[in-house]
Amino acid sequence: MTTNKGFCASVCRCFFEYSTPQILVIRSTKVGTLNRIIQALVLGYVIGYVCVLKKGYQDTDGVLSSVTTKVKGVAVTNTSDLGLRVWDVADYIIPPQEESSFFVLTNLIMTLNQTQSHCPELQNVGFDCVTDSDCKAGLSNTRGDGVQTGRCVNFSSVARTCEVLAWCPLELDLRPPDPPMLAGAENFTVLIKNSIRYPMFNFNKRNILPHVNKTYLQQCVFNRVTDPDCPIFRLRDMTTEAGEDFQTMAVHGGIMGVQISWFCDLDLPASWCVPKYTFRRLDNKDPENNVAPGYNFRFAKYYKTNNNKETRTLIKGFGIRFDVMVFGQAGKFNIIPTLLNIGAGLALLGLVTVVCDLIVLTCMTKRNLYKENKYSYVDDFELLPDGTP
Amino acid sequence: MTTNKGFCASVCRCFFEYSTPQILVIRSTKVGTLNRIIQALVLGYVIGYVCVLKKGYQDTDGVLSSVTTKVKGVAVTNTSDLGLRVWDVADYIIPPQEESSFFVLTNLIMTLNQTQSHCPELQNVGFDCVTDSDCKAGLSNTRGDGVQTGRCVNFSSVARTCEVLAWCPLELDLRPPDPPMLAGAENFTVLIKNSIRYPMFNFNKRNILPHVNKTYLQQCVFNRVTDPDCPIFRLRDMTTEAGEDFQTMAVHGGIMGVQISWFCDLDLPASWCVPKYTFRRLDNKDPENNVAPGYNFRFAKYYKTNNNKETRTLIKGFGIRFDVMVFGQAGKFNIIPTLLNIGAGLALLGLVTVVCDLIVLTCMTKRNLYKENKYSYVDDFELLPDGTP
Amino acid sequence: MTTNKGFCASVCRCFFEYSTPQILVIRSTKVGTLNRIIQALVLGYVIGYVCVLKKGYQDTDGVLSSVTTKVKGVAVTNTSDLGLRVWDVADYIIPPQEESSFFVLTNLIMTLNQTQSHCPELQNVGFDCVTDSDCKAGLSNTRGDGVQTGRCVNFSSVARTCEVLAWCPLELDLRPPDPPMLAGAENFTVLIKNSIRYPMFNFNKRNILPHVNKTYLQQCVFNRVTDPDCPIFRLRDMTTEAGEDFQTMAVHGGIMGVQISWFCDLDLPASWCVPKYTFRRLDNKDPENNVAPGYNFRFAKYYKTNNNKETRTLIKGFGIRFDVMVFGQAGKFNIIPTLLNIGAGLALLGLVTVVCDLIVLTCMTKRNLYKENKYSYVDDFELLPDGTP
Repeated sequence: MTTNKGFCASVCRCFFEYSTPQILVIRSTKVGTLNRIIQALVLGYVIGYVCVLKKGYQDTDGVLSSVTTKVKGVAVTNTSDLGLRVWDVADYIIPPQEESSFFVLTNLIMTLNQTQSHCPELQNVGFDCVTDSDCKAGLSNTRGDGVQTGRCVNFSSVARTCEVLAWCPLELDLRPPDPPMLAGAENFTVLIKNSIRYPMFNFNKRNILPHVNKTYLQQCVFNRVTDPDCPIFRLRDMTTEAGEDFQTMAVHGGIMGVQISWFCDLDLPASWCVPKYTFRRLDNKDPENNVAPGYNFRFAKYYKTNNNKETRTLIKGFGIRFDVMVFGQAGKFNIIPTLLNIGAGLALLGLVTVVCDLIVLTCMTKRNLYKENKYSYVDDFELLPDGTP
Repeated sequence: MTTNKGFCASVCRCFFEYSTPQILVIRSTKVGTLNRIIQALVLGYVIGYVCVLKKGYQDTDGVLSSVTTKVKGVAVTNTSDLGLRVWDVADYIIPPQEESSFFVLTNLIMTLNQTQSHCPELQNVGFDCVTDSDCKAGLSNTRGDGVQTGRCVNFSSVARTCEVLAWCPLELDLRPPDPPMLAGAENFTVLIKNSIRYPMFNFNKRNILPHVNKTYLQQCVFNRVTDPDCPIFRLRDMTTEAGEDFQTMAVHGGIMGVQISWFCDLDLPASWCVPKYTFRRLDNKDPENNVAPGYNFRFAKYYKTNNNKETRTLIKGFGIRFDVMVFGQAGKFNIIPTLLNIGAGLALLGLVTVVCDLIVLTCMTKRNLYKENKYSYVDDFELLPDGTP
Repeated sequence: MTTNKGFCASVCRCFFEYSTPQILVIRSTKVGTLNRIIQALVLGYVIGYVCVLKKGYQDTDGVLSSVTTKVKGVAVTNTSDLGLRVWDVADYIIPPQEESSFFVLTNLIMTLNQTQSHCPELQNVGFDCVTDSDCKAGLSNTRGDGVQTGRCVNFSSVARTCEVLAWCPLELDLRPPDPPMLAGAENFTVLIKNSIRYPMFNFNKRNILPHVNKTYLQQCVFNRVTDPDCPIFRLRDMTTEAGEDFQTMAVHGGIMGVQISWFCDLDLPASWCVPKYTFRRLDNKDPENNVAPGYNFRFAKYYKTNNNKETRTLIKGFGIRFDVMVFGQAGKFNIIPTLLNIGAGLALLGLVTVVCDLIVLTCMTKRNLYKENKYSYVDDFELLPDGTP
């Protein structure tokens, strides 16, 4: 009975025990100053870096975004093949819609009226020949433009190449026209519509800001100084901001990045959350190492002639692909990250003692006085009889 | 020799020293209770938030995903231009394949038999004129549809506009038809195939679950209640779930987000890891600020006439783009994050003492008793002669 | 005056106070060894895992990337419908350009000369009929290919189905040809140009490495052993590396992932930062559950006949979509994460004492000696008169 009561009391005692470290307080101007300086550094770091710079008191969320683009403008070309010809948006945007990028044709090599037939291979791609025995019927490799028939035929009055079954006449692998065919593309404009959402805060916004009305939108063009809120961009302006010359880039094509960043502090008014546009050339135009520069691809328009035979117009299109990239992070005050960061800051303050002790107990002249007071000893060297201090 | 031995022993002693803080145990119901309450709070946070909610004992990995989509259905239109006409998947999906989105044409303005020729500009876009001197040969700007020839011609019996070289006849910039031309698109269905992978855990799964067989797949349609595992979605159902009316949205077009989330706890059976579908409208239909609403783009089909002249059918297509977005994170028990979180939890328990001390030494009535026992002092105020306590 | 001076002195004293815990040093081989072992474990973890493996002393940045692709090669088909026909890049890449993926047509079912007209529905899709009353005029559902006219007509000499208005003749839903039509696609090559950027470190690089010159690029093909730096890949090699047979995959189509990883330690020379290519099949070919396998879509080429009637060639294209996925992270020495990790490491060393105390004070034979020295007591049990130790 007594034992039981004693045991109960012992558990109670244990429950109500509070353990706190015993502290030695050193009252010294030197040591105290050192301590306060290190504390100030840690506090400065916690407040300055964690709270102000990194906004550690906020919960953050990543951006969800949708982008649509609409290009406007017409360009005109004048070639011997096609005569005077106007190119509009349905002609130069390929494919007509993409998820978050658009391609504007700026230069092209056109091969008209190709049909499935026989013609001599191009010169100097490895299929030059003298007699039929230099050609191999049925051979088709990645450098050729078709399947060899096994015959050697006249390519020109002076050269002979292997005959191929292919879309004939073959495209002549010429350098792209310079200046570019659709030089007028530099004046095209693009309306970029971008809606974003921060799901954690149920915050929606779009880059057509509330004060932008239909009238303004019909005539404005983005300008970092005069029209920073206009979501309509002139293509030339975008390349210029990226430090590129549009006409030079238009010859071989390239990739432009249109970066829209939405870094928002939602503790501030929502109207302060506005997009920031930056432009960069994404493909490398490394001057020393310009192997395979630019951006181009081939596509074709298919027709049928009167006698139901398929013909096509092959176009090697050079142009600029604009990749719209939306970045962003929103922050809003939340008690949990605040507590976490305060906790981490207090833990850092605990480290101050470690650093101070290191200095006080090794460098100070009175280190032995401090040591005597800070440390007590229990000696228990069974194996080292001479180990007494 | 003795010195050497002594030095050796000193290093040994130092190596075998163990420093542990001296602890003052306060046995008091008040202080003990306070201590246990704060400990309980910290423990509760560590266990509840870190372990249960955030699953801090798990290693996590982000999802890798591939998506393919296949739309089915036919719509019928009846216009004076085209007569009765059926639209199938090859007609209304533009472009025919994309990486993780698909566009369904729901409404259109068609301009037939355009050729490169001369015609008067549209009225009221800034090119109205009285005499030829109002027009400027060679001018083409982003609001015009072609290149001006410099002539002023009759647009109608009452109005004159500048003549342009363009794809003529020009598209009349009308409002899109309402109800939408392809109103039947609401009954189209789309099969979304989504394979995911968590590379760290070598875990693969797809949204066609193992129990779904070919027969079921041929006739099922997703329904959150009756068919939650069917990966075939009716377009109207998706817009309805997002709180939109399909027919209204179809007139001007828009962007829908199809969100597939794969949040999986791989400590549980793999069959519990199933996709969750949600639908949202991504573009902003903000009623107060509906500048440039919806989603549309222009594309053309090119033909050649008997005399080898190119003509085209220009289509201004309005429609809904469905962006399939796959989210996900998988977690699995791993010893390293478990240890890290236990460590962080213990470190937090260390902070309990800091908080308790603050309360005990400032608010308790017996604070002076506790202070006397907790603190020892070394006074070393060289500069402050009156600094003795 | 005196009071004032006393108060000032008191504040000064407080400012110059430095609190450091009182330490009990236990000199014992057992305890000391235990302490050092646990310290070594924590130090090993901090140095080995945090510093060496996770490179905790580095700031890290995610990769920004742009990808362009260019496929080369020709394939030849020989069918009764089309005769001998050559397919080149403009024929088999659909759409002609995408942001970071490309689709190669490998197999197809072609339906020539479709027009908007009336024809009987296919058999066995639910529209078989005996009399007109089995058909419903105006009905169009997702399983049908057009809009029913309400008539029941002969599908063949033995079967009758409902008549539909559709693109006729209807595509026969056959199994895809095996071997695939464009079996030669396995020898196509693709040049993948990938430029990356780590914005935080202003570091740009592309996968055409500086030592790769134009001559090499014209004839090289990627080979993990002999040509690991060549950015030109043979399609068959990519599927083979992923453990797939190209010809088998080509029949029904599929999705391949081309993973380019750029994990770079920018403390090392920039030339050590090179891309690593891996290939994986992304869609699931789960043998037990092959519902709806592969990847295919329908597209059409539109023509106009002499009498201005629209016809089209419908193609059900099977093929392989290659999704290029760029991963990467770069690290570079930075003082802030270094300090953060050293701090966290020191905090972990503080936990050593907690673990050691636990063992020393509960398991060691001399635990009572240690306890006596470590703990002092203040008893303050008002409510428990028998609570004295």
